[in-house]
Amino acid sequence: MRPISFLSDFGLTDEFVGVVHGVIARIEPELRVIDVTHGVQRGNVRAGALALVRAVQYLPEGVALVVVDPGVGTSRRPIAALTPWGHFVGPDNGVLAPAVAMVGGASEVVVLEDERFRIPALGGSTFDGRDVFGPAAAVLASGQAAITDLGPTLPNESLSPMLLPLVEPEGNGIRGEVWWLDQFGNCQTNVSAEDLTALGASPGREVTLQIGGTEHNLPWVAAYGEVEPSQLLLHLDSYGLIAIAVREGSAAERLNLAEGHQIVLKA
Amino acid sequence: MRPISFLSDFGLTDEFVGVVHGVIARIEPELRVIDVTHGVQRGNVRAGALALVRAVQYLPEGVALVVVDPGVGTSRRPIAALTPWGHFVGPDNGVLAPAVAMVGGASEVVVLEDERFRIPALGGSTFDGRDVFGPAAAVLASGQAAITDLGPTLPNESLSPMLLPLVEPEGNGIRGEVWWLDQFGNCQTNVSAEDLTALGASPGREVTLQIGGTEHNLPWVAAYGEVEPSQLLLHLDSYGLIAIAVREGSAAERLNLAEGHQIVLKA
Amino acid sequence: MRPISFLSDFGLTDEFVGVVHGVIARIEPELRVIDVTHGVQRGNVRAGALALVRAVQYLPEGVALVVVDPGVGTSRRPIAALTPWGHFVGPDNGVLAPAVAMVGGASEVVVLEDERFRIPALGGSTFDGRDVFGPAAAVLASGQAAITDLGPTLPNESLSPMLLPLVEPEGNGIRGEVWWLDQFGNCQTNVSAEDLTALGASPGREVTLQIGGTEHNLPWVAAYGEVEPSQLLLHLDSYGLIAIAVREGSAAERLNLAEGHQIVLKA
Repeated sequence: MRPISFLSDFGLTDEFVGVVHGVIARIEPELRVIDVTHGVQRGNVRAGALALVRAVQYLPEGVALVVVDPGVGTSRRPIAALTPWGHFVGPDNGVLAPAVAMVGGASEVVVLEDERFRIPALGGSTFDGRDVFGPAAAVLASGQAAITDLGPTLPNESLSPMLLPLVEPEGNGIRGEVWWLDQFGNCQTNVSAEDLTALGASPGREVTLQIGGTEHNLPWVAAYGEVEPSQLLLHLDSYGLIAIAVREGSAAERLNLAEGHQIVLKA
Repeated sequence: MRPISFLSDFGLTDEFVGVVHGVIARIEPELRVIDVTHGVQRGNVRAGALALVRAVQYLPEGVALVVVDPGVGTSRRPIAALTPWGHFVGPDNGVLAPAVAMVGGASEVVVLEDERFRIPALGGSTFDGRDVFGPAAAVLASGQAAITDLGPTLPNESLSPMLLPLVEPEGNGIRGEVWWLDQFGNCQTNVSAEDLTALGASPGREVTLQIGGTEHNLPWVAAYGEVEPSQLLLHLDSYGLIAIAVREGSAAERLNLAEGHQIVLKA
Repeated sequence: MRPISFLSDFGLTDEFVGVVHGVIARIEPELRVIDVTHGVQRGNVRAGALALVRAVQYLPEGVALVVVDPGVGTSRRPIAALTPWGHFVGPDNGVLAPAVAMVGGASEVVVLEDERFRIPALGGSTFDGRDVFGPAAAVLASGQAAITDLGPTLPNESLSPMLLPLVEPEGNGIRGEVWWLDQFGNCQTNVSAEDLTALGASPGREVTLQIGGTEHNLPWVAAYGEVEPSQLLLHLDSYGLIAIAVREGSAAERLNLAEGHQIVLKA
């Protein structure tokens, strides 16, 4: 019996998350389910993939149930993938790929077609979390089925990828991108501390942040407390990436930043 | 030991839900509690009843703890009802009735009056979820008490009903109603696929939706992906009812619909 | 194995809460975690302390994991305290103090410095919930470590206090304060029923509420149902304190009240 870690864009206002928990408990009452988050922006596959890749290293090995699925009801494939970490269950739209790669890649991929492990839909097929993915996660986590019981296998390399941008040189700086805005407006970028130090920057000194035609000089600090309230700062965040933040405020609002926006950093 | 499925309008901002979980764990630490949803609109008994009736068929048999209770502190009765599915615990204001009926009706109904299974209120009696309903659910789920231990029995037929409207003929169409807006603005109606096909409508063709004096021609599709982004559509939703939706958008906003609004559908 | 009760200001939009659950489950998969609330206003230490003190008497004895920590990354100390109720784990910024005092005080306080029970940060030290507090709670709850294993002891009286205002006489009335606005706009004050009856007030009669220069005459009732919808009222709330409320409405909005605002009550 292994735990299920459940991540979705279902939100918590309606009963969608609770119903998936119910479906899992009906299959095996003793299963543990960790709610990673259900606050992914609706249908934002990239945001879901990034949340999963940030979280997976802290989750207990077992089954990841991931439902960010704007293509529900279309021909996108519902899949399960076996990795060294455990099983990943979700739509094959790229949401699983970065986490699967991070934990060592898939040794088995199947399409969730076997009707024995699906709940017959009452109507349209718009709730695959309840009818397809939840049941698959429950039978894998409880050991009631092996992954190859769930449907036909696919070539391991057929998992749909999620293209994530790399940092690129730009003049005497580097061009990066905002990966993630958390709910407080902190902006995680795809820039590492090594990227910055390679430019000659160092903690404790200022870095130039260019957004569009505007430049901002920000201190690179170790903790928010090193700047005054409402001051902009750069820091190495808790995931090991450079983030733009405002002490007791929102960097996203201050700089009008959104996920996917381009930035340039210079020492 | 059976699981408790907990549904309320408490929201998740304050500690109300956590305190009820605490009360249950103090009575029996091994009990499992599924949070169905706590996002029911505050005091909206009909919305709570509909969420419960949508969810109950997917929940593990056991105890349903349902607290949508605008009349807390008044003379409405706190009750428990025994059904073929298990126990339902909540206020007798209609919130339990549709789900109780759906799972086969009540064979025993009691008023939660026995002080042995209530927590003495520190002050006013405004938190019956913590002081009355949570403890009752916990002792029923753990087997520490039988339903008849909890208070005097009522005639089974005395459970307060929830009147839910039926579809009615209107000219050459049918008049129905919006039952539920989910958080994304999808509008579930009380119209079934059979109701529509009886009018001569069929999937793949257009249906006329009349709201007030305005008519909209909507395609009846199997999946959102069959229309363009931001286009209106009708589909059979995952609960087997006809819903009005917008691909990647909100039908409620587009059509200014709210729960209880009347609609007319024609082939 | 004892349960963990987890309270934070992390919100539920991002995966912060889920990651802490994951860290705990990796240390001991059988641990139970009760989410008290994660909706404390970001960085509002006093609001977190008050939520904890309201909740703790209803939580199962064990470990309270409390992360409202605007000073993360600064010199504030991460601590654990042993009390008759169990362990409290969190930042030493006052958020723990009222609950620790309420359950009988601390007999042991340690600073969470031992690296064996911390997760090495990937980058900056801005997620102590994941890297410091969560692991400490898990090893204490599972019995894998004693509190004195986690770091050097502090004098018990060195726990940082949280100053909470007392009621004071004001003319022929009393001056109090709004402690807590719940999400529905109910305003809990620091005034007890005894404070009001000492002024000659009694349930069923009117009380004068003065805010700034404006006076309001409010009925002191036992239940919301005793007044008309949208009418202001005073009542003894479910925690035994006097609260200002509006039936089916928000007293905070009606009276423009916020946490910390001063009020005067007269019979």
